[in-house]
Order: sequence, then structure tokens, then C-alpha cells
Amino acid sequence: MFVLVNLKAYPCDPVEIAEAAADVSDETGVRVAVAPQAAHLSAVAETGVETWAQHVSPVEHGSHTGSTLAEAVADAGAEGTLINHSEARRKLADIDASLDAAERADLETVVCANNPEQVGAAAALGPDAVAVEPPELIGTGTPVSKADPDIVTDAVEAAAAVDESVDVFCGAGISTGDDLDAAADLGATGVLLASGVAKADDPRAALEALVEPLA
Amino acid sequence: MFVLVNLKAYPCDPVEIAEAAADVSDETGVRVAVAPQAAHLSAVAETGVETWAQHVSPVEHGSHTGSTLAEAVADAGAEGTLINHSEARRKLADIDASLDAAERADLETVVCANNPEQVGAAAALGPDAVAVEPPELIGTGTPVSKADPDIVTDAVEAAAAVDESVDVFCGAGISTGDDLDAAADLGATGVLLASGVAKADDPRAALEALVEPLA
Amino acid sequence: MFVLVNLKAYPCDPVEIAEAAADVSDETGVRVAVAPQAAHLSAVAETGVETWAQHVSPVEHGSHTGSTLAEAVADAGAEGTLINHSEARRKLADIDASLDAAERADLETVVCANNPEQVGAAAALGPDAVAVEPPELIGTGTPVSKADPDIVTDAVEAAAAVDESVDVFCGAGISTGDDLDAAADLGATGVLLASGVAKADDPRAALEALVEPLA
Amino acid sequence: MFVLVNLKAYPCDPVEIAEAAADVSDETGVRVAVAPQAAHLSAVAETGVETWAQHVSPVEHGSHTGSTLAEAVADAGAEGTLINHSEARRKLADIDASLDAAERADLETVVCANNPEQVGAAAALGPDAVAVEPPELIGTGTPVSKADPDIVTDAVEAAAAVDESVDVFCGAGISTGDDLDAAADLGATGVLLASGVAKADDPRAALEALVEPLA
Repeated sequence: MFVLVNLKAYPCDPVEIAEAAADVSDETGVRVAVAPQAAHLSAVAETGVETWAQHVSPVEHGSHTGSTLAEAVADAGAEGTLINHSEARRKLADIDASLDAAERADLETVVCANNPEQVGAAAALGPDAVAVEPPELIGTGTPVSKADPDIVTDAVEAAAAVDESVDVFCGAGISTGDDLDAAADLGATGVLLASGVAKADDPRAALEALVEPLA
Repeated sequence: MFVLVNLKAYPCDPVEIAEAAADVSDETGVRVAVAPQAAHLSAVAETGVETWAQHVSPVEHGSHTGSTLAEAVADAGAEGTLINHSEARRKLADIDASLDAAERADLETVVCANNPEQVGAAAALGPDAVAVEPPELIGTGTPVSKADPDIVTDAVEAAAAVDESVDVFCGAGISTGDDLDAAADLGATGVLLASGVAKADDPRAALEALVEPLA
Repeated sequence: MFVLVNLKAYPCDPVEIAEAAADVSDETGVRVAVAPQAAHLSAVAETGVETWAQHVSPVEHGSHTGSTLAEAVADAGAEGTLINHSEARRKLADIDASLDAAERADLETVVCANNPEQVGAAAALGPDAVAVEPPELIGTGTPVSKADPDIVTDAVEAAAAVDESVDVFCGAGISTGDDLDAAADLGATGVLLASGVAKADDPRAALEALVEPLA
Repeated sequence: MFVLVNLKAYPCDPVEIAEAAADVSDETGVRVAVAPQAAHLSAVAETGVETWAQHVSPVEHGSHTGSTLAEAVADAGAEGTLINHSEARRKLADIDASLDAAERADLETVVCANNPEQVGAAAALGPDAVAVEPPELIGTGTPVSKADPDIVTDAVEAAAAVDESVDVFCGAGISTGDDLDAAADLGATGVLLASGVAKADDPRAALEALVEPLA
């Protein structure tokens, strides 16, 4: 199970969370990565934790002021990137081009999608994984595995129908170890979570509790 | 073979082209439709020609100033709509929602895409058809069926792999009857064209020449 | 006082409202215009009411599928257009280019803005009028003239400081004749309204009540 | 004169250029800053050069995956930010909100604009400076001060008419010390440049030649 902690633009200490994630991953053997703001990538990567970007732009080197160049985030230490998160929805053609950009820079990719149809569409573009995150559940503390488990199994089916090699992750509302277990039972091989860790009073304790059932 | 004439924002007379298209369709039995500006839909529909929208917004009735509501274009006489044309690229989630909107309004749908991967992705969203239009060929007069026939056959395969019921159209650079024949030979069941008719000195003669091999 | 009724994408009968607006305008001498969906422009214009577009694209004639060409909306009967409504926010450069497009097509222009600073910015681009519509009040039934009258007077000042010839309209939450009076007292020379008429059980009665204090 | 070197997404070594810029600034007393990719901000800031962001998002702390948070770029060492560069055009309302975000994070601000009208509009939003960059000259090597000096003087007038305290910078095509002199003569107090340094074989020599007339 892959646990990807998205720090969004939360008022958290990215290095403190990265250190906790690195320790928890080392201690438990569970793969945990942290996705901070682009400006915090190098500070997070220096902790030794697996570091991800929240987004890369569909561009190559060139005149693209304000872009998030795949090569630059890789240079700062990112090993993977989210694409098309529900808070950063992209054009179909740009998701395709962002995947090309990530591949050029050797970044692992997770394309987010709202529902099983979009998961199938995303899978057709050849990412490493897709993540299903019903927008109405994000930040609620109600995991999709409980609120609507069919969405996860339908997403797993939709991805497999298009490309067997694409993993399916599960996001939105994940906050406990039970949620991770439930996601795994439904066929997900990873989870995206954010506020459950990034907004916790004690992020380290939150991470430990989260991965405990997997350890 | 379905011939869809996209008038874009060209400085043409939409009613004159619509009348020619209606006549050519009646005389030859070839299905021909015209997609004008939204503001010209009702004038075009009054000629009796099959009328399409160039785009619908991913919205339902509500507070959406400046949107192109599917119900409004249907009300003005549209029977189908393009979605995600290369000049009007949309977010993946919005293509999905635009398809829902079109379905609500009983509009037939063609989702455009740049390449076979995106064709597969578009097919996963359940449109009536997808159209492959390599952006670099649009407006060139060099048909994709000649410049790069593999793109069309790959698109047909990509769509079929995802959903057998989705038709594949072929766009970009179509201007002669031979181009239509070539597109049909590669597995396309429709073509999108624009400047070849809309910017012709004699749009009626251009349409007649175009459909002649099919008649 | 100019009363501009924005039908947005509401599930109303645009022709019924247009006929009511035309009659009320004729009977009272108050200038009333109706802004329907682009696809309904010609049907609305045929009633004789002053007809406005909700939006025009920052483009000239050309390859712009899915755009709303200023020339096309003018051709369908529009005499003016909103630009940058809060539900259709545009890039600064595109507001500028949309104003150029509207001028080419002889359309009167109202650029919407959230607050006095943006009103000043919009005025610098040379529209006929700017409209201040605090987003948090849209659709509430609480008029800006009551909720925060300083925003209107500050907007009037901000516009005048940049260009004395630019009118200031007032939008958001307008639903009664008293709201129009209050807007006029604060220096506005027009109002934008939408749900108060478009979602009324009896749009004609709503319009009559609205303009009564002005008649 | 303020010299702001925008590295865009160019395939350059941001730290090498930053070190050169820091040295040149120290040796000549000319204020020189470097604006790298967000992921490179901390590495650039560590050289001691004045560091700028290429863009900040119009958001506060919160659920904004993929955003460029003003606080995060400041935390990484940025002291200022470009906003609305021609390669990253933003909505009017978002320019306004990005300026608020930059102010919260104590970042100096330069809002870019295409022409004198947009410069006036940008000035009305209260940035520290505006930059006029005719899009057709970017990357050409032909400075706006030569190609069309009136645009610069008109921009200076347009900004002053709105707010005397807003500086005017000059961008597009700047590559020599003469171009800086010419910009200063036209009333600009800073310049934006990019390819002239970032794509130079010897960025240090390019910078030295550039600031020599000012030293």
C-alpha cells in the first residue's frame, strides 16, 4: 500500500511532516511519500522522504513563465507527481502532455479523477496510477470506501478494462488505518490523503495510527 | 459517412452554407450537418439542415452567465454538439459533464482529440463519436488520411479497445471527395471539415465536389 | 436608469420575459434590456426589446470553434454585451481584447468587477460602463446598496478617478424598486439584475414593480 | 534601475546564473534579481541574490493543490513576484487576489501588461510596479524601446494617471546596456529580461555587459 500525503497549501510545517513520514516509513516498511508546495520540494526531499510534486505543467523547456516544469521538480528531488487533482483540474490534452513531461523527467505519475468514467479515461493516457476522489468527499473525514464503496470497485474495473497495468488509488476522506484497510479490500493499491495528516495536531501520531494496520 | 461542416468564427454567411448543405444532403442522400456560432443556430436550423453546436458548457440550468447551455442550443434547433475541439480544449472533468449535459438535452455528441491516446480517453467517457484531429494539420488542406494514416487507424483501434459502440470521425485538412474516401477506408464513419467549405468562394460547389464520391 | 436583466442559464422562457420587458419599457419610458443565452439572442431580439449578449470572446473572425464572436451576436440582434461577469471571469488581456471586439461590432459594453479596485482597473480599459457586483451578494436578494453602500460610492469614485466618461452600474441582490432608487442615490446609472425577474413566478409583475419608482 | 532576470522554464543552470547575478550586483551596485522556477527558489536564494517568484496564486492557505502559495515562495526565499506575465495571463479578479496574497507574504509585486491601457488597469490594482511587454516582441532581441518607444512613454503616462506611486518597468527584447539606457530615458525604472541572459553562452558576461552603462 502506497500512502501519499498531499500538503496542498495548508499552513503546516512541511519539513516536520516529511521527517515524520520518513521515520514512519522506515519503521514500518510502508511506502509513504509527501507532496508539498513546489517551493518546498527541495527542503522536503532533504529529509530523505519520498517526495512528490502536486502538479507538473504540460510543457517542455522554453518560454513558460509561471509553469511548473517537470525537470525542475525532479531536479529539486521529486520522484513522482500528481496530475489533474480535483483542485487543479486540467484539460484532457494537457493531462496527456503533462504525462509526457513527467515521463521525460522520470517522475512516477498519478492522475486524479472524479468518477469511474474519468478513471477509465485517465487510464487510457498511460499513467502509472489513477486516483478516484469524489469531489464531494474531499476534506470531509468520510472515506469513499465507506460513503460509496462501489465507486472504488467500479474505478478498479474501469481502469483494468482499459489497461491492466494501471494501479488504482483511492482518495477523499481517508483518515484512519481502517480506511486504508477498506481501500485495500476494494482493490486500491494506494491512498491519497491530506488534511488527516497535514492538519493534525500531531502529524507523526496521525501517520503512525494510519499505517499501523499495514505494518 | 457523416459530413460535419464547422463554421468556426469564419466570416461566412451561415444561412447560405446551411441552405447549400441541406440541398446537397437531400440530393445525394449523404448526411451533412452544419455547426455555426451559437448565435446563428436558430437561423441555420430554419433552413432545415441538420444543425450542430460547436460546444456546450458543463453546466445545468442555473447561475452560469456566459455559458452555452445544452438545453438552449437544443431549443434553438441543434441536434448535436462538438465537445473539446482543439480550439476549445476542455478539462477532462468538464468533457464528462458536457457529455452529461448534452445527453440531458438529447444532443448527439462528438468529442475531439489530438491523438489515439486521447481518443481512447474520450471514448471512455461514452460519447456517440470521437474525432481525431492532429492540431498541426488543422486548416492546412493536407488531410490526416494522407499525412499520417496510422493516426486514423490507431484512433479506430484505440476507441474500439475501450468501447466498440463509439464511432470515429476524422478531421483536419479534409477538403476533397478523395479525402472522404480515404477516411472511410481507414475506418472513419464521419469527417469534420471547416475551411474547405466555409472559406470556399462557392461553398455549394465545394460541398457537391466533396460528397460526390459518396453519392 | 438602465435596467439590464441577465437571464444567465436560468430555466425561464426568454421570449416571455423579453416581451414583458419590451412592454414595460414602452409603457414607462425606462430603458430595459434583456441578456439571454447566445442561442436565444435572435428570438429575444425579435420581440423588439433591447437585447444584450452575456459575453463575447476576445477574438476576430477566424479559427475559433466554440467562441462567442462579437459580430455573430450583433448579427443576431445584440446591441450590447456584458464582459467579465463574476460567473465568467476573464483574463485582463482578454477583457481588453473583448472590448476591442465589441467595439468592432458596435456593441455597447459593461465590464463587471468585484470591488472598487477592479472597477478602476476595468474603467482604464475604456468600456461604456462598469458594474460592481460583490460576488458574495449575487443571488441573495440583499442589494449591495443596503449591504455595503460604500462599495457603490467607492466604485463611482474609482471609475471617475480613471475616466469620467465611464458609467457605473450596480448589481447583485437587486430585486425591488427601492433597490433601484438606492442605487441611483449612490451614483449608479444602471443596474444588473437576474433572479429577481428571471426566477419570478410572474416576471412581468416583477419588472413592473421594479421600475415603478422610476416611471 | 532594477534588472529582473526571468529564467522562465529555460534549460539553464539557475544557481550559476544566480551567483553571477549576485556578483554583478555586488560589484556594480546595480539592483539585479533572478526569478527561477518555484522548485528552484531556495537554491537560488541561497546564493544571496535577490530572488523573485515568476507567479503566485490568488489563494490563501487551504485546499489548493498545485497552487503557488505566496507564503511558500516567501518561505523559500523570494522577496518579490511577477504577476500576469504574458506567458501566464490571469483573470482580472485573480490579479487582484494575487496582489493581496503577495502583500500578505511581504512580496514586492510587478504586474505585467501588453499595452498602455492594460498598464493603467494593472496600476489601479495597487502593485509596486507594472511592466509593459508587447507580446510580439518577447524573445525577439528587438527592445520595445527601439521597436515602439511610444508604448513605453504611453505606459508611463497611463500608470501615472492612475497612481503616481506605481513604477513602470519595460520588458520584451531587452539584451544590451543600450536597451537599459533607452528604457531609463523613456521613464522606466526597471527592466525584465530573460533569454538575453538565461540563454547566453556566458550568462555572467551577458549580465556584465548589460549593466555596464549603469555601473
